[in-house]
Formats: sequence, C-alpha cells, structure tokens
Amino acid sequence: MDNSKMGKHISSQFDVELKGVRNSVLSMGGEVEKQLADAIRAIKESDHELADKVLSNDRKINAFELDIDNACTQLIAKRQPTASDLRQVIATFKTIADLERIGDETKRIAGVAKETFSSEQQHLLASLENLGQLVLNMLRMVLNAFARMDAEEALEVHQSDQGIDRQYEAMLRQLMTYMMEDPRSIPKIMDVVFSARSLERIGDRCQNIAEYVIYNVHGKDVRHTSVETMQDTVRKPRA
Amino acid sequence: MDNSKMGKHISSQFDVELKGVRNSVLSMGGEVEKQLADAIRAIKESDHELADKVLSNDRKINAFELDIDNACTQLIAKRQPTASDLRQVIATFKTIADLERIGDETKRIAGVAKETFSSEQQHLLASLENLGQLVLNMLRMVLNAFARMDAEEALEVHQSDQGIDRQYEAMLRQLMTYMMEDPRSIPKIMDVVFSARSLERIGDRCQNIAEYVIYNVHGKDVRHTSVETMQDTVRKPRA
Repeated sequence: MDNSKMGKHISSQFDVELKGVRNSVLSMGGEVEKQLADAIRAIKESDHELADKVLSNDRKINAFELDIDNACTQLIAKRQPTASDLRQVIATFKTIADLERIGDETKRIAGVAKETFSSEQQHLLASLENLGQLVLNMLRMVLNAFARMDAEEALEVHQSDQGIDRQYEAMLRQLMTYMMEDPRSIPKIMDVVFSARSLERIGDRCQNIAEYVIYNVHGKDVRHTSVETMQDTVRKPRA
Repeated sequence: MDNSKMGKHISSQFDVELKGVRNSVLSMGGEVEKQLADAIRAIKESDHELADKVLSNDRKINAFELDIDNACTQLIAKRQPTASDLRQVIATFKTIADLERIGDETKRIAGVAKETFSSEQQHLLASLENLGQLVLNMLRMVLNAFARMDAEEALEVHQSDQGIDRQYEAMLRQLMTYMMEDPRSIPKIMDVVFSARSLERIGDRCQNIAEYVIYNVHGKDVRHTSVETMQDTVRKPRA
C-alpha cells in the first residue's frame, strides 16, 4: 500500500506516462478547438462542405476519448498513484469527458451551416458567429490553462462565462423577436436557437475544465462553491 | 505493485468500502429520481411551491456528488484496486457525474412549473408531462440496472432512448406549430421547448449510465459503438 520503497524509478515512469497522457489530452483539445473554429467558419461562409467535414471528424474526438480513458485506467492500475498524482489522473478523466461533449455540441452547431438563410436572416447568423468567437476564445484559454496547469488563468476563464451567458440571453431575445415578426421562419430560426444554446453549453463545459485545473493545482474541489471560495482557493493577487 | 500478497484482508476491506460507495450512489440516484418526479408533478399540478422545493433540493444532489467523488478518490488511493475492482470505481465516478447533470436538467424543467399557462396551452403541458413520464421510467430502469449491475437491463434502457427521441421530435413540431399560430406566446412556449430538450438530454444521460453498467459487467467500453457491437457484448439471448 505504500509505494515509497519503490522510490524514484516508479515515480519517474509515472511522470513519463502521465506526460504522454497529458500530451494526448492537448492533442484532443487542439482537435476540438479546430472543430469549433471550423463550425463557426462554416456558418460564416455558408460552407456546406466544411460543415460536413466537422460532422465526420467528430469520430476522431470520440476515438481520442476512448484511448485516453483507457490510458488513464492503465496508469492507475499499473502505477497506483496517490495524492496529487492521482488527482492529476482523475482531473484528466473528467477533462476528456467534457472535451468529448464539446465535440458533440460542435456537431449540432455545424448542422446550422447546412441550412440556407435569406439575406435578411444573415444578421442572425452574424450574432451566432460573434457568440461563437467568444466561446472559441474561452475554449482556447481553458486549454492553455490546462496545458500550463495555471489556476489563475483557469479562474479567469471561469469568470468569463458570465459574459457569454449575457450575450446568449441577448441573442435569445433577438431570435424570439424575429420569430414573432416572421412566424413562418420559426422552424429555421429554432435551429439557430439550439446552436446558440450549444455555444452557451460549451461555455459551461469550459467552466468545468477550469474547475478541474484548480482542483489539480490546489487539491480543492471548487465545484458548486461560491465565486469567493474559488477566488480564495486560487488566491489571485488583485490588480 | 502486486496486491495479491496482502490477500483477502485488503480485498474484503475494498469490497466493504465499495459497497458503501455504491449505496451512496443509489441514495443519490433515488434523490435525483424523486426530484424529476416532483418536477413533473409540479408542472402537472401547477404547484409553484413544489417547483421551489425542487430548485432548492438540487444542493443535496451536488453534495452527494462531491462526497462520492471524494470517497472514490480515497478508495483508489488507499486500496489501489486493479482490473474489475478499478473498473467499478471508475464507472462510479462517471455515473455520479451524469446523475448530477440530470439534477441540473431537472432544475430547468421545474422552472416551467413556475409559469402561468392559459387553459388552451394546457395540452402542451400534458405533452411535456407524458414525455417526462417516459424519461422518469427510463431513469428508474437504469438505476435498477446499476443497482443490480444488470447489463441486459442496461442494454434495454439504452435502446429505449430511441422512443424518447421520437416523442421529443413530435413534441417539438407541436410546439413550433403552436408558436406559428400564436406568435405572442413564443417567449413562454420557448420555456416549454427548453424543458422538453432537457428531458431529451436526461434520456441521453441515462444512456451514458447504461454504457457504464455494461463496461462494468463486461469490461468493454461500448461508448461510440454500434447497436450490434453493444448487443454482441451483452450477448442478450434473443426471445
């Protein structure tokens, strides 16, 4: 039950293997980021082909999830990590589950790019694209925070979700007004509504990943806690 | 790295502790099930007080998640399980994450019970309640499958999600038709739309839990596989 006797040898093997797993997570994150960027571009440029590519590429992300999940299980079984080593593996398990689901939401967003919108509906797509860019930026930030295990950056990402929620609410009001003015457009606009909601959900999932980074760095589970508790945990120096 | 020398003593301690964790998961599942049943009843009976209770009770579910998560981490650190023991702990980690998010979706559903609907909008709530009963039934089944680690029942739950998806799509069409006929109702009906979507998402999460049960029993990760692969894994005898 005590690995200490096995000393540095085991420990460094663990480190090497964990590094491999973390690199895979970063590759997976890069792929998810690219998918979201492509989905947003497909909407902007009404590029049906690019949208199809996003839809078919989701398999890659699913494969990443299964591989990394398996690697984490092997790592626990073979190296039996405890304390902060174990925490890192568990944070990885959870991170990839959220990344995989960001992939699923991205597929739903890409679906909108396959529809045809009238010229007067284009401004709705522009709003969707703006929200998409905000969320893409949040995803990039949280992947950076994960890569550098930077709890302060993770906290910043966590707090930036408020801005996304506000933008999403504003967009929802805009879409409902449009539907009220042109009820025939409802089925088509509903797809835009669901895409906007998928973007908002991706923001929530970025928040989850930010919480795992903080857990990993500070050893404290900050899910379901107040903003103040989270700030105290990270002890971010105030500007 | 090999626990075998420590023999039965450690192994039975692990079993006792795992049993405790599994009982907590079942309590958490029972609480989530009750929340969903209450949310549906609050909608049926326009019971604002019950809806408020659902909203405030979500804290209990969050607390369950943190406690069980911590217990699983301790269990791995202290008992260093491998093979099927480790698989059980990992399946538990994932199950509670999905249960917690079912709780979040349930909160969104309860929100609808706090609105006031006209008598002619009541039939929409009846449809929502029907969908809710189907999903509640699916949740009960998957919790049973988890309690008894019954892969065949899990497979059955997994396949029943198709029926929920169909019912959800039909309900969405009904809601869009209603909005087209009475555009002023759009903001209120949108809340019903989002509740229906939350129910559909709960169905997806029940599918996830079903996959963890199959993984736990058969040691094969069936996520992202075909229906046939899943059936072959479970080897369900055909009637």
